[in-house]
Order: sequence, then structure tokens, then C-alpha cells
Amino acid sequence: MLSPTIFSGSLPGLTDFVPSLSLATTPEADYGSFVLTGVLMTLVVIYAMSKLGGELSKRVGLPPVLGELVGGVLVGVSALHLIVFPETGATAADSSLMLFLQQLGGLDGTALEHIFASQSEVISVLAELGVIVLLFEIGLESDLRELSKVGSQAAVVAIVGVVAPFLLGTVGLVTLFHTPIIPAIFAGAALTATSIGITSKVLSDLGQLKSTEGKIIVGAAVIDDVLGIIVLAVVASLAKTGEVDLLNVVYLIIGASAFLLGSILLGKFFNQGFEAIAAKLKTRGALLIPAFAFALVMAIIANLIHLEAILGAFAAGLVLDETDLRKELDRQVMPIADFLVPIFFVTVGAKADLGVLNPFESANRAGLVIAAFLIIVAIIGKVITGWAVFGQPGVNRLAIGFGMIPRGEVGLVFAGIGSASGVLDKPLEAAIIVMVILTTFLAPPLLQAVLNKPQDPDVPADREALEKSLSV
Amino acid sequence: MLSPTIFSGSLPGLTDFVPSLSLATTPEADYGSFVLTGVLMTLVVIYAMSKLGGELSKRVGLPPVLGELVGGVLVGVSALHLIVFPETGATAADSSLMLFLQQLGGLDGTALEHIFASQSEVISVLAELGVIVLLFEIGLESDLRELSKVGSQAAVVAIVGVVAPFLLGTVGLVTLFHTPIIPAIFAGAALTATSIGITSKVLSDLGQLKSTEGKIIVGAAVIDDVLGIIVLAVVASLAKTGEVDLLNVVYLIIGASAFLLGSILLGKFFNQGFEAIAAKLKTRGALLIPAFAFALVMAIIANLIHLEAILGAFAAGLVLDETDLRKELDRQVMPIADFLVPIFFVTVGAKADLGVLNPFESANRAGLVIAAFLIIVAIIGKVITGWAVFGQPGVNRLAIGFGMIPRGEVGLVFAGIGSASGVLDKPLEAAIIVMVILTTFLAPPLLQAVLNKPQDPDVPADREALEKSLSV
Repeated sequence: MLSPTIFSGSLPGLTDFVPSLSLATTPEADYGSFVLTGVLMTLVVIYAMSKLGGELSKRVGLPPVLGELVGGVLVGVSALHLIVFPETGATAADSSLMLFLQQLGGLDGTALEHIFASQSEVISVLAELGVIVLLFEIGLESDLRELSKVGSQAAVVAIVGVVAPFLLGTVGLVTLFHTPIIPAIFAGAALTATSIGITSKVLSDLGQLKSTEGKIIVGAAVIDDVLGIIVLAVVASLAKTGEVDLLNVVYLIIGASAFLLGSILLGKFFNQGFEAIAAKLKTRGALLIPAFAFALVMAIIANLIHLEAILGAFAAGLVLDETDLRKELDRQVMPIADFLVPIFFVTVGAKADLGVLNPFESANRAGLVIAAFLIIVAIIGKVITGWAVFGQPGVNRLAIGFGMIPRGEVGLVFAGIGSASGVLDKPLEAAIIVMVILTTFLAPPLLQAVLNKPQDPDVPADREALEKSLSV
Repeated sequence: MLSPTIFSGSLPGLTDFVPSLSLATTPEADYGSFVLTGVLMTLVVIYAMSKLGGELSKRVGLPPVLGELVGGVLVGVSALHLIVFPETGATAADSSLMLFLQQLGGLDGTALEHIFASQSEVISVLAELGVIVLLFEIGLESDLRELSKVGSQAAVVAIVGVVAPFLLGTVGLVTLFHTPIIPAIFAGAALTATSIGITSKVLSDLGQLKSTEGKIIVGAAVIDDVLGIIVLAVVASLAKTGEVDLLNVVYLIIGASAFLLGSILLGKFFNQGFEAIAAKLKTRGALLIPAFAFALVMAIIANLIHLEAILGAFAAGLVLDETDLRKELDRQVMPIADFLVPIFFVTVGAKADLGVLNPFESANRAGLVIAAFLIIVAIIGKVITGWAVFGQPGVNRLAIGFGMIPRGEVGLVFAGIGSASGVLDKPLEAAIIVMVILTTFLAPPLLQAVLNKPQDPDVPADREALEKSLSV
């Protein structure tokens, strides 16, 4: 096992004589510096690909997050092998970056495996911190007041948009493809997500944020975010027991709801405590550190009661959303999200083995057929939500349906958790990722086609700031 | 070795059935979630102690960074054992946090050791990223133009303030305490630092930033920062070879200077490239990510040519300092520093075993005598710099000397690197940390005593912002 050192990392050669002088008892103690170098190199690759992919994606009018994902695919297990992970079966010898480090440092194979494992562990935890910060930020940006204004319309759209694709997807996979129940439920759950970031960005670009359709879509996307996380907690917990335990499902729905609602109801109390603490602090990070520590504590609590850590971070963000200090906090969380979130998206892309979708390999054709099925369900299951809207004559129902289509980051979180837990086999995981990518690609042109007359180009400043901050 | 997973971390119980379903080949694969929980809990402890210590420190008129360090001591190996590291000889059984995790998860001893090692590795790399960001920020805030204005006065003060304590300390340790040459040089080098953050904060509190003394002190502290990093690179590289190789010293001084000066001279080129890239990017993090990636690349290059990673980050900050985008970049780097830097200071405190300074143990008395000697040298070596100032009749020479006394974060970096590399034995390391703490404690009251008349209470806004940003 590695004996980690805080400082030796910056001194590669220094470690040559460490064993004879220090308290280090294992020969592995001198790998620490190479772990840091490996982590720094991996981060540089991640940032380069996230910017390259994100910018190219934006240039062609698509959400930047897609480009980050594709950038990850390019440097990952599917292509360049610069960023690979032990969990996908890779060893240090499969990592171009590790082989480069080996040449630089003259390391033997055992040393390299240790460095590879430690470096992967660090990048994995950084990616997890990335999702935690992302969900904290989404929570901060999800506004309970906006949500209550759009009210029942948005709620109906959200619920139909969760139930319809979930049922269509799960039942379809079980009956048509004979998929076992748990992976089918997982895939169905992945179909329920709606990306609030992508959706609101597209609406803003079309000047439709303040239209009836726009408000319903944004409201529904916010509710869908909450529902999606509950669904995720439910299916993940289902997966833990290995079978469909109805009592457990009910317990988990109650648990997830109680946690989220409890957080919101106790929000005023938390807010007052948070504001009192932040007001009293006089050192740097007076606002950020209490908020961030609160998010981490909520993540730990969520984890301990068998929910997702990210659900805790989201609840923390939703609660702090109500404080007067929100805007300043938002401003400070943004750079941290910019710094950590790309690690998450690029590594998700890096771990997606798109090789299974090569149609020239006969073994892959099942995966491709599943992908086609999931894409059809993903579109139909969301488009019908427009017809669930009541009491709004003349509303553009197709636009609402199209607005709910992009799955974005939440869909990817499902795919990632399913993959890491071993619930999803490779063809199904890849099919979900292809579904997420294609629905996210399809939504902007579809929405543009049905909302071709820009109604309200003068978006108010604070809405624009929100929209800008959401355009990950 | 752990087989890290990106997502399973948020799903503790999920891992129970992973081995039977996934590609995971080792039983350790299911520790990932506990590693994340351990990291999150450690971060919460770090943030709590950094705020508690920092705030209390500030309330009694001392630099917050001191409180963070003392907070680290409280939760570290000297006291509560919440945060301990394998490099100090600790096992999982020595960590209160790991024992708590063991009770929660029902883990066996082997599992716990794996989790402890991985969690420590992640926290160590986060702390290293913390120093990298800190030095990047110090580089961003070190202004070459300010430096050239105070000119030769500041340079003389800085050089005397590096040479005098280094020679006094090293020669004194070798002759009086028979310390071997390499640890003596390391301790001497630790005496050369001046904390620009603490120094400028104290001056600002006294309304002396714009006085002649204030400008000379700040200018000298900036130059001292650069010299100190070169000295650090030199002694660290000396330590690598295990002996004093004069040719190597010259080579390293040239190398360090060439790297830093080369970075500055090529700065215009880098600036233009950076500005061009930042201007072209349209996605989130358009400014931050290129700057951060540049800092990481410079850190990697510095590492590869056998300098410090932090020297590269500092050079990157100094170069980007000259861009028009500096203020915005500064604003965005600040939350990341607030988030990462406390991890560095608290873990430094956590690893300092102050038990060796217990005077009731006879074995410790040598360490205490060394500490007393280092503190005397630390004060005398800096106080005499005031008399090196020329052509400034009536200047308060004692004030300039006192202003150079606080060692702060740079001194701690020396202690940490020396400790991690095994160059410093425990009494000498603890003596350096006590020296750093006491010089930092002493400087504010001493400066206040000799500069008792507040000359200029109306600090200009941008100076105040700088000062605020420096008050770590």
C-alpha cells in the first residue's frame, strides 16, 4: 500500500533517499511524487479536452457538456488510452500516460501499478467531488419560489415525463429484449431525467424563457430534477438488495422524500444558522466554507441513511438558495464547479467504451438495437408530456414535449452509477450513453423548429446570469 | 490495491454485491464508497478547524493562518487523532475517524488499512493542490511593477534578510549543536522566508502600507518570496544528492533563476497566448481553466527539470499577473484557494507532533534548546535588515526589521518538505514549526509598538482588496 506524503510529491528525485532517512517503512513510500505528477498530467488532459470539446460543441450550437463527454471518449478507453481506470479492467500498461511516466522515472512494473492505482483513486474522488459540487450548484440555482409559481402545470408535466418513459422503457426492455428486471429498471430510470441546464440554455437562446411554454418547461425540469434524484436513490437502493422489494421501495421513497422535504422544511432554521455563522466570520471564505461544509455534512448524512451523497448536496443547495447571500455564494461556487465538474464529465466519457457499438462486430448488434429502442422511448415518453398540460388553450404542446427531451448530466449520472455498480452490462450502458448524447443533440434543433418566432428577446439581467451560469 | 470507482462512492451498500456482477477482480473494489465518506468527513473536520482556529486567531489580532495551523495540531497526531497520516507512522487504528468508519461499516482490519491509506493519499494530493493554488495566487498577487518602484532598497533588505538568517542558522546549528550539514542547511533555509500575506496584513491594519517603511517591507517580502523559493529549490535539490555539491548548487541556482526569469521574459508571449485563448472561449471557465491548466503545465515542467512544482505555479501566477484579465482571474482563483488552501495548513498542523517539545521528557530538551536558538536567529537575522537600507535618512529601521520577521506559510512549506523527505528529524522539524509560529505571533505586537502613530488610515480601494485577499 502507498504511504502517502503531503509534500514529497513536488520533489520526485528527493524520494530516492527517503527510505534510508525517514520513518517510511515500505518501499512504495517513494511513489508519492509520481502520483502527484500523474494527477497533474491527467488534470491537464482533462481540462484541454473539456475546453476543446466544449468549445467545438458550442460553436456548432450544441451544449458544451456534450463536447466534454466526447472529449473524454477521445482520451479514454475507446480511443487514445490517456485516461483509463482499473474498474474497466485496465492495468497501468493500458495507460499511455503511465507508460510515459514510466519512461520519465525509470519505474518498474510493480511501482507503476501502485502509482496507477493511487492516481486513479485520486482522480475518481475528484470526479465525485465534481458531481457533489455540480448538484450543490444545481440546488442553489433551483428556485423553490419559481417552482411554486408555475405550480401544478409543471408538476403534471414532470410527473408524466418521469412515469411515461420509465414504464415504456422498463416494460419494453423486459418484454422485447428479455432484459433482467434490475438493469431494465435502471435503464428506465435513466430515461426519466431532464437536463435543467441544457433545457434552460436552449430556451434562453430562443428568447423563450418568459413564455408560458418556457416557464412550464423550466419549472417541470426543476421538479424533474428532484424526482429524478429520488428515482435514482430508489433504483440504486433497489440494486443494493438485488431484487425488487416493494416495501423497500416505499421505505426509500418515504426516506428520500422525508430527507428532501425535511431539509426544505428545516431550511429556515438552517438558513438562519448559516447566515448567523457567515455574518460572524471575518476571515477569507467566510461565506463559502460554511456553505461548502454544510453541503458535505448533508452529503455524509444522505450517505449514512443510504441515499445518494449528491442528493444531500442538492438538498443543501436548495436550502441555501433561500438565503439573501445566495447570489454571492453562487458567484463563489461557480469557479469551484468550473474546476471540478469537467473532471466528472471527461472521466464519464473516458470510461464509456463505445467500441461495443461498432456495428461491424456482430456481438454488438444487440446493443445498437437497444440504443435505437431507448432513443425512441426517450423521445415519445417526453413528447407526450405536452398533452398533459391542462387549462392552457393555445399552448404549444409539442414545444413543451421537445423541451423535456434532453437528458444531459442527470442521465449520465445514472449511466455512471449503473456502470460502476455493475448493474448495467456494457451494451446497455453504452446504449444509455448514446441515448443521452442523441436526445441532447436533438432537442435544440427540434425546439428551434417549433418555436421559430423569437417572442421575447430582452431577457432580464438576473435571468440571463442564471442562464449563463447554467450553460455548463 | 484499491480498484477505484467513480460512482460507487456515493453508494456504500451497493458494493455488497458488486464482485459478483461487475468486472471488479479484487475484493478491495468495494472500499471505494468508504474512501469517499472518509475524505468527506476529513474535509468537514478540516474546514471546521480552519474556521474555528482562523476566526479565534483573528479575534485576538493574529493572522488567521496561525489559527488554522493550531486547529490542525488539535485534530492531528499531537491531540485528537482525527487526522493522522501513514508517513508519521500511524495506522488506521491510530485514526479516530477510521475507527468511527469501522463501527459504521462493520469493516475488518485489512479493509480499514486500505481505506485509511487511500483516504490519506487523496487528502495528501488535495493538500498539494492547495499549496500549488496558494503559490499560484501569491504569484498572481506579486506585482512586478510595484517591485520595480521600491527598487534597490527592497532588494537589499530582501537579500540581507535571506543571507543573514541562513548563515547564522546553518553555521550556528553545525557549530553549536553539531547538526549534520544537510538538515542544518534546511533549517537555515526555513529561516529565510518572509510571509508576504501576514506582513502586508499587519501593515494594512496599522495604516502603514503607503509609508516608506511599508513599501520597502512589502517590496522586500515579494523579492524574499522569489528568493525563498529559489533557496527552497536549491536545498531540496541538495537534499536529493545527499551531499553538498557546489557545482550542483550553481547549476540549480542558474536553473531556478533561468526558469523564473525565462518565465517572466517569455511572459509577454504567454500573456498574448493566454489572452487570445481566453478571448476565444465562450463556455464556462473561459478564463479560469486556461489559466489553471497553464499553472499545472508550469508545475509539471518545474517538476521535470527538478525544481518545485510550486515554483512553476508561482511563475505561472507572476506571468499572468501582467494580463488585463488579472483582476477577474484573481476573483475566480480566490474561492478555489479558499477551498483547497486550508487542507494544506490544517494537515501541516495535524502532522506536527508537538509532543517532542514536552519539557518534562528529558529526550525533548535538545529540541527545545534548538527552538530557542532558531527563534533568536530568526529575529536577529531579520531585524538587522533595517540597517541595510541606504539613502533613506530618518527611516524607521527597527520597523523594517520587525516587518520582515513573520515566516508564515513559506516557512511551513520548508518544514513540511523537510519532514516529508526525511531530511529533518522530529525535534528539528518541531523546532522550525515552533519558530514559524512564534515569529508570526511576535511580529504584529512588535510592529505595532514601533509604528504606534497611524499615518495613513485611508487605504486606497484596490490596495484594500489586495490586502483583504492576502489575509489568508
